[in-house]
Amino acid sequence: MKTVGEVGERALVAMFTTAAASGGDTDDLVIGSGDDAAVFAPTGPVVVSTDTAVAGRHFRFDWSTPRQIGARAVVQSAADIAAMGGVLTGVVVSIGCPPQTPVERVLELNAGIVDQTHRYRARVLGGDLVSSSEVVLTVTSLGVLDGTQAVALSGARGGEVLALSGPLGGPAGGLAALSAVEHGADPLLLEQFSDLVEAYRLPRPDLGQGRVAALAGARAMTDVSDGLVEEIITMAEASQVRIDIDSASVPQVRGLAELGAALGVDPARWALAGGEEHELLAAFDPSAVPAGWTVIGTVSDGEPDARIDGAAVGEIRGWQSFTET
Amino acid sequence: MKTVGEVGERALVAMFTTAAASGGDTDDLVIGSGDDAAVFAPTGPVVVSTDTAVAGRHFRFDWSTPRQIGARAVVQSAADIAAMGGVLTGVVVSIGCPPQTPVERVLELNAGIVDQTHRYRARVLGGDLVSSSEVVLTVTSLGVLDGTQAVALSGARGGEVLALSGPLGGPAGGLAALSAVEHGADPLLLEQFSDLVEAYRLPRPDLGQGRVAALAGARAMTDVSDGLVEEIITMAEASQVRIDIDSASVPQVRGLAELGAALGVDPARWALAGGEEHELLAAFDPSAVPAGWTVIGTVSDGEPDARIDGAAVGEIRGWQSFTET
Repeated sequence: MKTVGEVGERALVAMFTTAAASGGDTDDLVIGSGDDAAVFAPTGPVVVSTDTAVAGRHFRFDWSTPRQIGARAVVQSAADIAAMGGVLTGVVVSIGCPPQTPVERVLELNAGIVDQTHRYRARVLGGDLVSSSEVVLTVTSLGVLDGTQAVALSGARGGEVLALSGPLGGPAGGLAALSAVEHGADPLLLEQFSDLVEAYRLPRPDLGQGRVAALAGARAMTDVSDGLVEEIITMAEASQVRIDIDSASVPQVRGLAELGAALGVDPARWALAGGEEHELLAAFDPSAVPAGWTVIGTVSDGEPDARIDGAAVGEIRGWQSFTET
Repeated sequence: MKTVGEVGERALVAMFTTAAASGGDTDDLVIGSGDDAAVFAPTGPVVVSTDTAVAGRHFRFDWSTPRQIGARAVVQSAADIAAMGGVLTGVVVSIGCPPQTPVERVLELNAGIVDQTHRYRARVLGGDLVSSSEVVLTVTSLGVLDGTQAVALSGARGGEVLALSGPLGGPAGGLAALSAVEHGADPLLLEQFSDLVEAYRLPRPDLGQGRVAALAGARAMTDVSDGLVEEIITMAEASQVRIDIDSASVPQVRGLAELGAALGVDPARWALAGGEEHELLAAFDPSAVPAGWTVIGTVSDGEPDARIDGAAVGEIRGWQSFTET
């Protein structure tokens, strides 16, 4: 099998450009992938965010397929667009990899990026391919606000409620299962809890809920990329409010309790302090919570503070396992 | 001195957000750095491109200051916006670095990014900071077309002329001087040819010429990031035309001939096959070449081909030293 170094940057970029050209909504496209830059004519204010994933730190090739890793990088970046109430329209991608990387691996990473982008009805607008000593993926997502206001982190006010777009704990549970098996647990665990493992490999939040929340008048929003506890701290500080979460009301994905029992871990740990889920967390007027969202707490005026079941989050915050230095 | 690992991602990102907040034109800004994503309201079609630079491959900390390295990453990415006729409005940045990196180095990299972005009257819209085993910078540039059409690579037609926005060879000459000194040449060379060394460390193309060229009706345009020879091949293929360059008419930066004599190298090599210059190369109607641009060749109908002084470029192409695998 050929390596990236043997095939060369030009030939690979040509393959990427071909892969990017098919699919996706191209209504607003002026110039696509393959030129110095892409050009598009947005239909509203533009939302932009960037996210980098590094092999061995954010993903492992022995735990996920290259296609899942590529797709996940898009989900993580696109979630930031949804968290503003935006709709993803395009991504630009940078892939760094060692010259000795098999071409097949890079093509699969790219296929995952392209597939997931097209699943969101968006386009791959361009990218860069460079030599690096480890695989590094940077996905920059672009979206538009389609008739809604941008939903910042700072808009939560006393009297509102906090709600979640979906259940938590899947990615953290799946990672815990993979880690347990690596450290000697029965590999059957991965089959028994395959839904959780798949949620780790490729989280599937309904990012369309970002626009739904914005249309419903969400006052503040973020995605749960750093774990719920971190996110409520961030929102409380940005909005200068107190946030109280009722841990019993935080929805957990199916199977989490059973995995917790199997591994001897409180599953609330995964739901409260796990990260890289990308479900959306938003503050609403109590009467404005969209269907399908779960109210998990309240916003009140006062000193910026985040509490779970009335207690300070300091201890729980210490649980988090994904924070990088 | 503290390291990135000791200070942590959150504290550093807060410092970056503060640095990004000052300066730059913020007329179209809705939400800046520090939220899940930034939001801006563009005044025209949006131009986007991404560019990654890796330590040891695209820059060296013993050859450039961190501030120059950060600024250069912005120049390289912004040049792709100019090459479409666009005006830079913002950048998003991803920095990967080892946890043991001194904080000062990362702050200086970021300062270079912020300074150069502000020099272009644009804003740092956000970013990501991750742990990686080597320093990796990805700059995604965003711009707008301000009343002009996008200038693609594919628009050159027979009867037009090819022109350059400025002289070439500085970055390649500077790199050759640094490399020669590393291999035993007299370090005084770096003082004698300091303009060339500085051009390598931080190229200063006048990127405003991108919009000037678009206003003048440029038919095709690119920046000279891969060396002039590579760029004319790319344009000839994209436009399906023959391009003839007269090497004697390619302007060289001052001092290049003297450095060539000192190192026993034909300086045309640096001007024709050096890269990472980011001067602009465009095809115009003969009567439409903007002031300050230098005509270096012609475009004619026929089989896609690129020739220098009538000869095939195959041999000269082999000179290039920057192409990555």
